[in-house]
Amino acid sequence: MKSSVSIIMGSSSDMPVMKKAQEMLEKFGISYETKVLSAHRSPNDTVDYVNKATQEGISVIIAGAGRAAHLPGVIASHTTIPVIGVPIYTTNFKGIDSLLSILEMPSGIPVATMAIGEAGAKNAAVLAASILSIKDSKVKKQLLLHKKELRDKVIQANVSINKD
Amino acid sequence: MKSSVSIIMGSSSDMPVMKKAQEMLEKFGISYETKVLSAHRSPNDTVDYVNKATQEGISVIIAGAGRAAHLPGVIASHTTIPVIGVPIYTTNFKGIDSLLSILEMPSGIPVATMAIGEAGAKNAAVLAASILSIKDSKVKKQLLLHKKELRDKVIQANVSINKD
Amino acid sequence: MKSSVSIIMGSSSDMPVMKKAQEMLEKFGISYETKVLSAHRSPNDTVDYVNKATQEGISVIIAGAGRAAHLPGVIASHTTIPVIGVPIYTTNFKGIDSLLSILEMPSGIPVATMAIGEAGAKNAAVLAASILSIKDSKVKKQLLLHKKELRDKVIQANVSINKD
Amino acid sequence: MKSSVSIIMGSSSDMPVMKKAQEMLEKFGISYETKVLSAHRSPNDTVDYVNKATQEGISVIIAGAGRAAHLPGVIASHTTIPVIGVPIYTTNFKGIDSLLSILEMPSGIPVATMAIGEAGAKNAAVLAASILSIKDSKVKKQLLLHKKELRDKVIQANVSINKD
Amino acid sequence: MKSSVSIIMGSSSDMPVMKKAQEMLEKFGISYETKVLSAHRSPNDTVDYVNKATQEGISVIIAGAGRAAHLPGVIASHTTIPVIGVPIYTTNFKGIDSLLSILEMPSGIPVATMAIGEAGAKNAAVLAASILSIKDSKVKKQLLLHKKELRDKVIQANVSINKD
Amino acid sequence: MKSSVSIIMGSSSDMPVMKKAQEMLEKFGISYETKVLSAHRSPNDTVDYVNKATQEGISVIIAGAGRAAHLPGVIASHTTIPVIGVPIYTTNFKGIDSLLSILEMPSGIPVATMAIGEAGAKNAAVLAASILSIKDSKVKKQLLLHKKELRDKVIQANVSINKD
Amino acid sequence: MKSSVSIIMGSSSDMPVMKKAQEMLEKFGISYETKVLSAHRSPNDTVDYVNKATQEGISVIIAGAGRAAHLPGVIASHTTIPVIGVPIYTTNFKGIDSLLSILEMPSGIPVATMAIGEAGAKNAAVLAASILSIKDSKVKKQLLLHKKELRDKVIQANVSINKD
Amino acid sequence: MKSSVSIIMGSSSDMPVMKKAQEMLEKFGISYETKVLSAHRSPNDTVDYVNKATQEGISVIIAGAGRAAHLPGVIASHTTIPVIGVPIYTTNFKGIDSLLSILEMPSGIPVATMAIGEAGAKNAAVLAASILSIKDSKVKKQLLLHKKELRDKVIQANVSINKD
Repeated sequence: MKSSVSIIMGSSSDMPVMKKAQEMLEKFGISYETKVLSAHRSPNDTVDYVNKATQEGISVIIAGAGRAAHLPGVIASHTTIPVIGVPIYTTNFKGIDSLLSILEMPSGIPVATMAIGEAGAKNAAVLAASILSIKDSKVKKQLLLHKKELRDKVIQANVSINKD
Repeated sequence: MKSSVSIIMGSSSDMPVMKKAQEMLEKFGISYETKVLSAHRSPNDTVDYVNKATQEGISVIIAGAGRAAHLPGVIASHTTIPVIGVPIYTTNFKGIDSLLSILEMPSGIPVATMAIGEAGAKNAAVLAASILSIKDSKVKKQLLLHKKELRDKVIQANVSINKD
Repeated sequence: MKSSVSIIMGSSSDMPVMKKAQEMLEKFGISYETKVLSAHRSPNDTVDYVNKATQEGISVIIAGAGRAAHLPGVIASHTTIPVIGVPIYTTNFKGIDSLLSILEMPSGIPVATMAIGEAGAKNAAVLAASILSIKDSKVKKQLLLHKKELRDKVIQANVSINKD
Repeated sequence: MKSSVSIIMGSSSDMPVMKKAQEMLEKFGISYETKVLSAHRSPNDTVDYVNKATQEGISVIIAGAGRAAHLPGVIASHTTIPVIGVPIYTTNFKGIDSLLSILEMPSGIPVATMAIGEAGAKNAAVLAASILSIKDSKVKKQLLLHKKELRDKVIQANVSINKD
Repeated sequence: MKSSVSIIMGSSSDMPVMKKAQEMLEKFGISYETKVLSAHRSPNDTVDYVNKATQEGISVIIAGAGRAAHLPGVIASHTTIPVIGVPIYTTNFKGIDSLLSILEMPSGIPVATMAIGEAGAKNAAVLAASILSIKDSKVKKQLLLHKKELRDKVIQANVSINKD
Repeated sequence: MKSSVSIIMGSSSDMPVMKKAQEMLEKFGISYETKVLSAHRSPNDTVDYVNKATQEGISVIIAGAGRAAHLPGVIASHTTIPVIGVPIYTTNFKGIDSLLSILEMPSGIPVATMAIGEAGAKNAAVLAASILSIKDSKVKKQLLLHKKELRDKVIQANVSINKD
Repeated sequence: MKSSVSIIMGSSSDMPVMKKAQEMLEKFGISYETKVLSAHRSPNDTVDYVNKATQEGISVIIAGAGRAAHLPGVIASHTTIPVIGVPIYTTNFKGIDSLLSILEMPSGIPVATMAIGEAGAKNAAVLAASILSIKDSKVKKQLLLHKKELRDKVIQANVSINKD
Repeated sequence: MKSSVSIIMGSSSDMPVMKKAQEMLEKFGISYETKVLSAHRSPNDTVDYVNKATQEGISVIIAGAGRAAHLPGVIASHTTIPVIGVPIYTTNFKGIDSLLSILEMPSGIPVATMAIGEAGAKNAAVLAASILSIKDSKVKKQLLLHKKELRDKVIQANVSINKD
């Protein structure tokens, strides 16, 4: 296993959201692998994968899940690697069920919680980069570029709204 | 294992709430056993216990948990026995975090959700009795007596408020 | 009455949701009957039906209702059979009104509460099967098959997302 | 039955709240009777009482209930008399469960919903007086006096805060 | 002024909702008049109208308003007639802002609060009929017919879902 | 009337909260007057006062109110002076009812909304100063001093926590 | 800098909302300038602009922002000018995240909070006019005209709904 | 600067909460420094400190803040170091205001959000350790010990509840 980051999601229907994390990692040049694993429908497979990933040297795990979103918490229970949780939007509770199931982890077993949906998935990748940057100066350079880009877009927006 | 019902809780601090389930089962004459098992702090032990309980013939599992209350869902993932979930009250979200983490189980793996806290724990025992009553007429008689008692208390209350 | 399960709903507009329960019961080979009965618009008919169903040997009642969703609670007041409540989605309160009217039953008279809408209706059928399985080993086998299917779908999803 | 108003509550523990309705009716000189009747624990007794009250000429029913507060709705299902609902405060949901179970009655069967708790109970009595005043000019005079009193208290408060 | 009921709304955009109240009153044969009056944009006109309506013998006022829905409360401040409030749905807060602004009237000045939107408007008319029925037996007969119709529809729904 | 600011509250029980606005205005050397006036219990007196205050040259009105907090909105309906609303905390809805009744004013008639309770009352005074400062340089100097004080306290706090 | 009001927004995507403030200021004949500045993506530029605007005599700042809407608060931290905050609607939290990030400013540094979205942006302009009117009688006249227009529209609506 | 972690809080009143992070870091043998810095009351000092900390080699920043909790976001705007946010409990909104102000950071600038209050502060330290462990095997060993301790406590709890 040569990836730095593992992206795990509870269902293939979460793919359009988690794709935002993939794209951002690719932009930063960070290697990753992607898995569908369910805390409730394939619990033993999930534990097996997390144990293997931990041993083979994955540095960060990003896990997206919806509803009673136990997946990030289950992963965090079985590893010392930093786990970043992305709550998936739900119709009935607008993703607040997913958010609370990830955020409210018990004392001692944290999950780094992101915002609900695509913005959260994208930011999960930026946070993963930020974590990797503490030991990888190339990633740090990517992050500085990323910050510059964000500012440049604001400056351009300012010009464009005053043109009209 | 000769108990009919298993009461599991995520932390010994849930005991004062889950005691209400114990008391109600005792009143109905239903045998039970009680365990502290954590979905996050002792995940493997939890799975081992659920597998054993399923094989040894427990008929109903009552599981109480708070915050990111994954315990009832984890149990339901590993057994075909009916699982009743009791959300424990929390200071920050008033138990709504616990409730949603139990209620919002994915399609295919239900947890019978009760109200938050002591009323929920008591009703979990009544529901367990109700489930057992479909094959045990003695428990059914207990439930009919229980319903009569509830009505009698209302009639007495009516007399007493009009006395004052 | 030879059905094992009774599906009751407050309005025929709840049919598209409750159909998910019918389909799941059919898949498990469990017999059922379906009724429209309103706690508010036909209260006496509702009580008459519940009394009759209880005497004729229905083992589980699934009741779906929306808004001030009193139907499951009214049913539970008149029987010792386990009652499973399915909150129907509402526009104004997103089904949270339905959920609380079912979940917050008083101490002594439980309703096994499911998630709001179709996932809840489907899980109501799985829970009904789970309850029946404590006395019917054929249903237990169906549930084990069901769990295997859930896992198989996750394994397939994993393959398919890594193909793209 | 010579009372004009009937005050019904789901439990004798609601008495301290519903007492506010009693006191206000007494102040207005309106006759009333008080009952404890439970929609869930004594459903048949509740229906019997409502039928009797309707026939004997009660003009308004005030019903207080908490949690899955079905009582006012059950009463409204069985009578054409105006029904005023008072949601009782609850620990877990701060009375919002009670409120929604009363407010969200289906189309065709209204309950006049008041605020949660004591202010609601007091206002239920004022609304009952307001309803009676459409056929009873003595009650109308009481309401005019009541409005004058409310204003006088504000004027006095104004004087007193500027004294300090 | 020969109408029995006055329907007031804060904006002509509330008309599609309040039309449900008009239709129901027409069905019951109850006379009414309709006004657009704003608590904030035409406050003096609102007070003038309420004073006039009170003197000329309107028996019930139905007031619909959205957002900071002060209209029903302002009306109730200036009259002893029963005031029924209909919260109008809003995009940002789903009508909960309207609901709380109507429900949470101070102690001493009630507004009979209905559900948000069309169901609330329709039920406001039924409640108005219910209030008028305490002095008008023709309206009472209409209400009994109305209840019979509600039950008949449930019975028909039951037949139709079991036909498919 | 020689005051610059008028502080109005719906009830004398709001005084402990609104006192925070008084204290802050005094600290800034801004003259003010205080009134108890109720939108519901003394509506005509409220309108009379607002008209008088507008004519006599009050520059800013601070209005505190709870529950269906119509007071700030009623005032804003009758004047062109900037109106600052302070939502008072409530037991049932934690002041969210008060907040929404003030915040959700209709298009065209704004109320400058502050946070719930004491922090809101204090900030209402700072905002009033901020408004007055656009024509009064003495008040502007007071605000600059105030900002310096806020920063100084942070610097001191930093020293003190690192001493322990 | 000769503008009286500065309109700042966190992103050019907020322009359709903030345009409502522009339109209203234009109607009142109040000069303004518009900027895109981000509290998070261009923090130093934001501070530089606020310092410059304060020195050059802007009288009121209107700031619109969404999600973790820090922009109005950051601005208020760097100036004594009154700052009006407009929460932008968000999909996940319906703008309540934006609202709370603006409303809940710490004691000592107020932001005058408006309703979420377009109504809030429009009202921000009316409040800005209201603030300017304390030193500019031309703006005061515009506000009186504005109030008359609001009332005239209600009177016309009343005529039109009774025509149909 | 030789610390690995920086703990920053918005007010010295947050110290009892943030102490939980200090204690956990001490237990893991991780060096840290603690600062009070306010996003609103000392914004320039905050930026100066973050710039200095970034240059001097701090690896992780933990920031606790309440109400409009802009502090973690402001810090994340000025650094590429991973920032962990701890929402402080508030009376009015129970910390949900703090949570949303931290969680809802815009796309591109993440803050790793923890649960509200003490559990969140403790878990922030565990997450910081988890991040450091990707380059420091001593910290990884500490985390494995920590996980063993958590499990041991559950096993002991199980023994003790079955003793009684």
